[in-house]
Amino acid sequence: MDNFTYCTPTKYIFGHQAEMNAGTELNALGINSVLLCYGGGSVVRSGLLDRVEGALSEAGIKFVKLGGIEPNPTDPKVREGIALCREHGLRGLLAVGGGSVIDTAKAIAAGVPYDGDFWDFWAGKAVVTQALPVGVVLTIPAAGSEGSGNSVITLLDGMHKISLRTDFALRPKFALMNPELTFTLPPAQTAAGVADMMAHIFERYFSTTPDVQVTDRVAEGVLMAIIEEAPKVMASPCDYQARANIMWCGTLAHNGICGTGRREDWVSHFMEHEISAVYGVTHGAGLAVVQPAWMTFMAHRAPAKGAQLARRVFGVDDPDDTSAALKGIECLKKFYSSLGLPLTFGELGIEHPDIDLLVRKLHENKGQEIGGYYRLTPAETAEIYRLAL
Amino acid sequence: MDNFTYCTPTKYIFGHQAEMNAGTELNALGINSVLLCYGGGSVVRSGLLDRVEGALSEAGIKFVKLGGIEPNPTDPKVREGIALCREHGLRGLLAVGGGSVIDTAKAIAAGVPYDGDFWDFWAGKAVVTQALPVGVVLTIPAAGSEGSGNSVITLLDGMHKISLRTDFALRPKFALMNPELTFTLPPAQTAAGVADMMAHIFERYFSTTPDVQVTDRVAEGVLMAIIEEAPKVMASPCDYQARANIMWCGTLAHNGICGTGRREDWVSHFMEHEISAVYGVTHGAGLAVVQPAWMTFMAHRAPAKGAQLARRVFGVDDPDDTSAALKGIECLKKFYSSLGLPLTFGELGIEHPDIDLLVRKLHENKGQEIGGYYRLTPAETAEIYRLAL
Repeated sequence: MDNFTYCTPTKYIFGHQAEMNAGTELNALGINSVLLCYGGGSVVRSGLLDRVEGALSEAGIKFVKLGGIEPNPTDPKVREGIALCREHGLRGLLAVGGGSVIDTAKAIAAGVPYDGDFWDFWAGKAVVTQALPVGVVLTIPAAGSEGSGNSVITLLDGMHKISLRTDFALRPKFALMNPELTFTLPPAQTAAGVADMMAHIFERYFSTTPDVQVTDRVAEGVLMAIIEEAPKVMASPCDYQARANIMWCGTLAHNGICGTGRREDWVSHFMEHEISAVYGVTHGAGLAVVQPAWMTFMAHRAPAKGAQLARRVFGVDDPDDTSAALKGIECLKKFYSSLGLPLTFGELGIEHPDIDLLVRKLHENKGQEIGGYYRLTPAETAEIYRLAL
Repeated sequence: MDNFTYCTPTKYIFGHQAEMNAGTELNALGINSVLLCYGGGSVVRSGLLDRVEGALSEAGIKFVKLGGIEPNPTDPKVREGIALCREHGLRGLLAVGGGSVIDTAKAIAAGVPYDGDFWDFWAGKAVVTQALPVGVVLTIPAAGSEGSGNSVITLLDGMHKISLRTDFALRPKFALMNPELTFTLPPAQTAAGVADMMAHIFERYFSTTPDVQVTDRVAEGVLMAIIEEAPKVMASPCDYQARANIMWCGTLAHNGICGTGRREDWVSHFMEHEISAVYGVTHGAGLAVVQPAWMTFMAHRAPAKGAQLARRVFGVDDPDDTSAALKGIECLKKFYSSLGLPLTFGELGIEHPDIDLLVRKLHENKGQEIGGYYRLTPAETAEIYRLAL
């Protein structure tokens, strides 16, 4: 087990009508004005935005609205939000939505008190030391951004999709999590969310750090819960209990508890970020394609962790590591398939992916050799992309 | 899954030399003076106290010492600490030790800014709304107090041993966790710590709240890690990796992550608190005696959760719930026994326990009917105590 520092100060308020606490939680933090960030139609259509606005007004909190945040959020919206916060002297942010909305709010939060361009943080030219406080009303269990210090933004100029990871500065102050808000998520988005949260665990699980028994077991536990609950959610979108389990799994998958004490990997995410930056696909769907391909490559190079996953999570009984790992990957693909997720570039709607372009951008953004579990050269990442054809 | 609020803001710094961060962490919190709380010999003999004092001095932090805190800590030491803090105008507490030291520090932290008697909080006459900040250097993985908002204190007048549970007010600001500090723990104390942390999970696991798949799976994962690592720690007390796993398990067992979204039980703890208040035994050893007895009672009344535990954690293959639960309890007892833990009052050194007294005090302190998983009358708690004869 490696040395680690772990701190997750986010206050999770989970359950029925959780969103109605938005005003009181902001008041408790001494925040009297916010930029209210949200995306498109469903938050408005469902009446959620009205309810949140009502809760803010009732608590005497002034707000300015920033709507229309799109999936795979980009820098112009961040700049627009930073300008609005500065213009109106807003003291915090309230994100109502999923990962894209929350990540945009975090980027705005980091940018407002910073003199330079907010992208400096994503480009690795500066470190976030202060940020406006961010609160969240979660509507999509997937990205885990409600409990993480991370934010993924795409710079339109060059389509650079980059994930910024901070220890504390960008962790939300509170996350209001009402599973009912996810009842209306379309099946494809529900399934992509499941693949996303599983990927967050896999990125931490595939680690060369030995002797992390407790972190492994916790990670395996959350994976097993997802595998048990996801089919219920797909079959009965209004099953509160299954939705609640999936929602909390999404948080635990990414708030760091599955990663304590070990080196992580994250190459599947980097590889997917290039796919979604170039082809605009849903992040979770892209992960369902690229991560099993990554695992297949690893089953032949470094099978130990894949074999453990296969045996403990999927019940594979095979003494050979490579063979066990491959059987586990088959179980995972069958599971993804049962949720309607794509398994290949073709099923993702990309008939002829430009693998050379993906590989070039990947290594441009992340370096010549990448990966925590296994170091990969451009030739090897190309091979992994091809395994997903 | 029930509605819940979950917030664990404690900053865990885990690994080699973690204790050397005491000064810098206090500085970061703006605390320039502390009451340095510790227990008896080993913290002094090992040189740990000297090292911590050095770290404080180097950071310019003034400190006053309160040593000699005993296991099963009592109210006089708390009052002494409150007086010291007030006399010297100290701004925080640093606990160097295990649960007894940390719990004493928390009680002092609650008492200093309070006008009335600190016991009001434990007696349920007042609620902790403010407290001095508490930092921890952990030396015994067991009580989980480094990550919890709880504190167990015994009022000497009447020997009332009461656990106070707060959501946030008494959670430590930081916990410095160096597994090396636990190398010198005697085997009996190591084993008692293991029983204590497992008990913290069982108290949350035995719940009537349905549909808590993810919380169950996480709890089972931590239990499995403990069962795998504890024998290594007993066999090789200086096995850093095994000690590290056990140390982190102790925190996860009690920082609330194994309890989210469900009603908990805690009767085994209440029953043990009476034993240790009257007979002065080690808490964890008392739990190893009373909790399997409680589980045995439940196997015949409400076997579902015990059966799930037996099947998932101990690999019991038996379709009948009662029979499976009983087999799981046998596995647990065999495990405890292998660690050298007592399984009966006799093995605990209490040849003729005064069960009438224990039952009377238990229900005096906790009410006529007690328990979250199953409501128990005095006749039934007496039956459970007798199962431990």
